[in-house]
Amino acid sequence: MKTIYLAGPEVFLPDAGEIGQRKKQLCRQYGFCGLFPIDSEIQMADDHENLGYAISRGNEALIARADIIIANLTPFRGVSADAGTVYELGLARGLGKFPAGYSNVQQDYLQRVWQAFGDGPLSAQSAGEIRDRQGLKIEEFGLQDNLMIEGGIRAGGGLFTTHDARPEEIFTDLTAFERLLQQLQSRP
Amino acid sequence: MKTIYLAGPEVFLPDAGEIGQRKKQLCRQYGFCGLFPIDSEIQMADDHENLGYAISRGNEALIARADIIIANLTPFRGVSADAGTVYELGLARGLGKFPAGYSNVQQDYLQRVWQAFGDGPLSAQSAGEIRDRQGLKIEEFGLQDNLMIEGGIRAGGGLFTTHDARPEEIFTDLTAFERLLQQLQSRP
Repeated sequence: MKTIYLAGPEVFLPDAGEIGQRKKQLCRQYGFCGLFPIDSEIQMADDHENLGYAISRGNEALIARADIIIANLTPFRGVSADAGTVYELGLARGLGKFPAGYSNVQQDYLQRVWQAFGDGPLSAQSAGEIRDRQGLKIEEFGLQDNLMIEGGIRAGGGLFTTHDARPEEIFTDLTAFERLLQQLQSRP
Repeated sequence: MKTIYLAGPEVFLPDAGEIGQRKKQLCRQYGFCGLFPIDSEIQMADDHENLGYAISRGNEALIARADIIIANLTPFRGVSADAGTVYELGLARGLGKFPAGYSNVQQDYLQRVWQAFGDGPLSAQSAGEIRDRQGLKIEEFGLQDNLMIEGGIRAGGGLFTTHDARPEEIFTDLTAFERLLQQLQSRP
């Protein structure tokens, strides 16, 4: 049975354990074994900083064990995906794991960045030269986030999908997640 | 001569090429060959989305060639590092490259997240149970960003340093970058 590392910002939710169980249950339903970040047994550390490093080592070990990563790339506290999830996707790609990802927000990266950091109407900007209020270039590739993310998934022959979840279910809606499991199950 | 992939959000600056040259010049000064993301020759693509993927492939190829990554992890458009840079750090770690990183902001992650997403005085919160206005847990490990970032650098035996740059030089100050080059040069 293939194992899937379940990367995503769900670990920060008040009901992190419950959503982890729901994701693992769906994995089983499609014939996979899901590994949720907080599954790894963390040894008690003698201070907070060491506990952070211990969690990191535990998660890296789970990724090393997994065959597949499904990264929840829904924007988290800002315009991009959760930084930990993005790191884990890169690590999984470097380790040759099968990369899959989803976002519960369908609005593209350019639109989201412009909404938060743009100045005036986006339609008045020149294509290929769109910059935020600080003069920093905004990517215009029609992608969902920084190009390295979807680019890496594509280069690894992986899967990426989006779904427009209701705002109150943005971190808990599993429609796109389940769609990926269906696609993974039907692969040879 | 060892090669260093120079990951960071400098690629979005109006003077991206110039800062790339400055970083590569510093690399040469310390006996390294720097590879800047936009150095890879991108074939003309037939549409914007394909250009995005082509840049991603070019950057992944540079990282595969490099011995070392130095990631500029300064917060970018929000509380965390640039998503592309974080992906590249993870990829480099997965490929067994030597990981190094720096941030030009010394304030820790908890303080930054609280400032942007907290509610009321931070001092009134209970240790180990700090959550943002949406109820999402905030990491309390005394680290500079999501724990996977510094955790991965440490697990890879790498280097991480911070420097408090002036706000107007947050993306161009090379003090911490040069400190890493010095440390890399003195390694056996």
